[in-house]
Amino acid sequence: MRRNRQILLQGRPSGLPTLDHFRLVESPMPQPKEGELLVRNVLLSLDPYMRGMMDEGKSYIPPVPVGGVMRGETVGEVVETRDPRFAAGEIVVGPGHWQEYASFRAARARQLDPAAAPVSTALGVLGMPGKTAYVGLFKIAKPKPGETVVVSAASGAVGAAAGQMAKIHGCRVVGIAGGAAKCRYVTGELGFDACVDHRAPGFAEELARACPDGIDVDFENVGGGVLAAVWPLLNDFARVALCGLIAEYNDTAPRAGPSLGPVLEKRIEVRGFIVIDHEEVTPDFLRETTQWVREGRIRCREHFVDGLERAPEAFLGLFEGRNFGKLIVRVAS
Amino acid sequence: MRRNRQILLQGRPSGLPTLDHFRLVESPMPQPKEGELLVRNVLLSLDPYMRGMMDEGKSYIPPVPVGGVMRGETVGEVVETRDPRFAAGEIVVGPGHWQEYASFRAARARQLDPAAAPVSTALGVLGMPGKTAYVGLFKIAKPKPGETVVVSAASGAVGAAAGQMAKIHGCRVVGIAGGAAKCRYVTGELGFDACVDHRAPGFAEELARACPDGIDVDFENVGGGVLAAVWPLLNDFARVALCGLIAEYNDTAPRAGPSLGPVLEKRIEVRGFIVIDHEEVTPDFLRETTQWVREGRIRCREHFVDGLERAPEAFLGLFEGRNFGKLIVRVAS
Repeated sequence: MRRNRQILLQGRPSGLPTLDHFRLVESPMPQPKEGELLVRNVLLSLDPYMRGMMDEGKSYIPPVPVGGVMRGETVGEVVETRDPRFAAGEIVVGPGHWQEYASFRAARARQLDPAAAPVSTALGVLGMPGKTAYVGLFKIAKPKPGETVVVSAASGAVGAAAGQMAKIHGCRVVGIAGGAAKCRYVTGELGFDACVDHRAPGFAEELARACPDGIDVDFENVGGGVLAAVWPLLNDFARVALCGLIAEYNDTAPRAGPSLGPVLEKRIEVRGFIVIDHEEVTPDFLRETTQWVREGRIRCREHFVDGLERAPEAFLGLFEGRNFGKLIVRVAS
Repeated sequence: MRRNRQILLQGRPSGLPTLDHFRLVESPMPQPKEGELLVRNVLLSLDPYMRGMMDEGKSYIPPVPVGGVMRGETVGEVVETRDPRFAAGEIVVGPGHWQEYASFRAARARQLDPAAAPVSTALGVLGMPGKTAYVGLFKIAKPKPGETVVVSAASGAVGAAAGQMAKIHGCRVVGIAGGAAKCRYVTGELGFDACVDHRAPGFAEELARACPDGIDVDFENVGGGVLAAVWPLLNDFARVALCGLIAEYNDTAPRAGPSLGPVLEKRIEVRGFIVIDHEEVTPDFLRETTQWVREGRIRCREHFVDGLERAPEAFLGLFEGRNFGKLIVRVAS
């Protein structure tokens, strides 16, 4: 009898998680109820926000219980449907989680057309990361054409999309990425105006040189030392769209933030945002971004890892920047 | 021959200024040019923002040069006019600075009607501090009726106005002030719902008790340890209107800010603002606030100090909270 392989949260980490915080188990196959789909997961998205679900306590997403399946979005094939709007064999994106088979409410699934765009993009540039970039740029930061926009984690799923959208919008875009290869990709392939390696000596000075007119918008994905280098370069009326703080997610105590003096003197706006609060943008986002992808104006690099069992290791690599592009696990072929 | 007494900036302080950073001198009387007024200053406003003008370097207001007259707003009597729209004997508010007589462009003066409101209010609740409260509350923080608004430096010129405006707007308003007498005044006279003494032991716990539903808006005038107590109480989608950081103005190195983790998780907006960027509110501000003052819905306490020569000492007292209400120097009777 067929079994379902799953990855469970084995325990709550303090600081950086290790492989011991995850466990691969075989469970009975899920049984879809009325209104649900049974989906065979093909691709699983791994994203930095998942670190937050491993912790206890109140956040914008409830924690995964210890012993529960790690949550995440997947692209998969409908195997069985108990909703008449879906048919077996269709490809959907939905909350399939870290497992081979999932059943979930059909209302939470969206059908994909493999002819329109590679289905993996539903986890990246045309999915949550792309929508995050769109919201952060156009609803939170609102840069004007000609302004200087800095994007950290610039080769990552969100950063790459945000920077390319800012270029389309007519901004001068400076990326920050870890390592020379990523920086070359960000300027060469993604078309940013400049990219600075935050691991190189003299990073802060290089960033200042790359932003001769200061920084009007910071699309912040990293925090920590990266944000500290951005801070003194912010212009009057700068906007910081606080999208992620990956450098700080494994802190065991709250880390002090940058000084508020410049926020007052320069009338800066710092605003945290989460994409799930902005569902109303979805039609505009999908229409515009699909078009930009089709026209080749937005490119996206994907980093595939084969096998569900390698998801924990791949996930941990996010915190060291070991992925190069949107990180996706191929759960099945 | 009549001379003009002035207070000059004698040197640039590092950290807390002392009396030695100021010098009282006698100078020749100013001579108004075409389009200018000669004004005999009666009241001089002392405000925390003036600390910034004592430092060198770029800010939103240019520094006072060493040896220059300390700048500030005054209420005074027109002695001589070279602008036909003004008459000798009129009372005006304008940039009269720390001196007995000033000449400045008539366009920068505004005539006051002593019958409409005490002229001193043009330096307080109906002047820059009141407008700052109005802008910070209604243009930056935008509380909804029923929300919890915290105001630090609650008995000060800006804080008292901001809190009373928030009450008029239907909010639950919690003040923070230094000492039991100020707290009693803030609840008893100004009508805040609660006021917490930041100098008392257990301040953070008291603040939490005073805000059982958390904090939706922080009208921040203080920074430092006061803001640190506010930070963990901020609700999802809270707004921090960053108006002042008086606890930090004498720092000799940038002080770390509160952690950005909660800004992201709770989608908080932190926004610095300066009243001079919002001149367009002036008509609405004056109309509404004058009405509120007339109706007794906004009260204002003034702290008078007699004699221009005492301005430096009174100014330094601002950083210890020695004033109780809007600090004004009576330069002349």
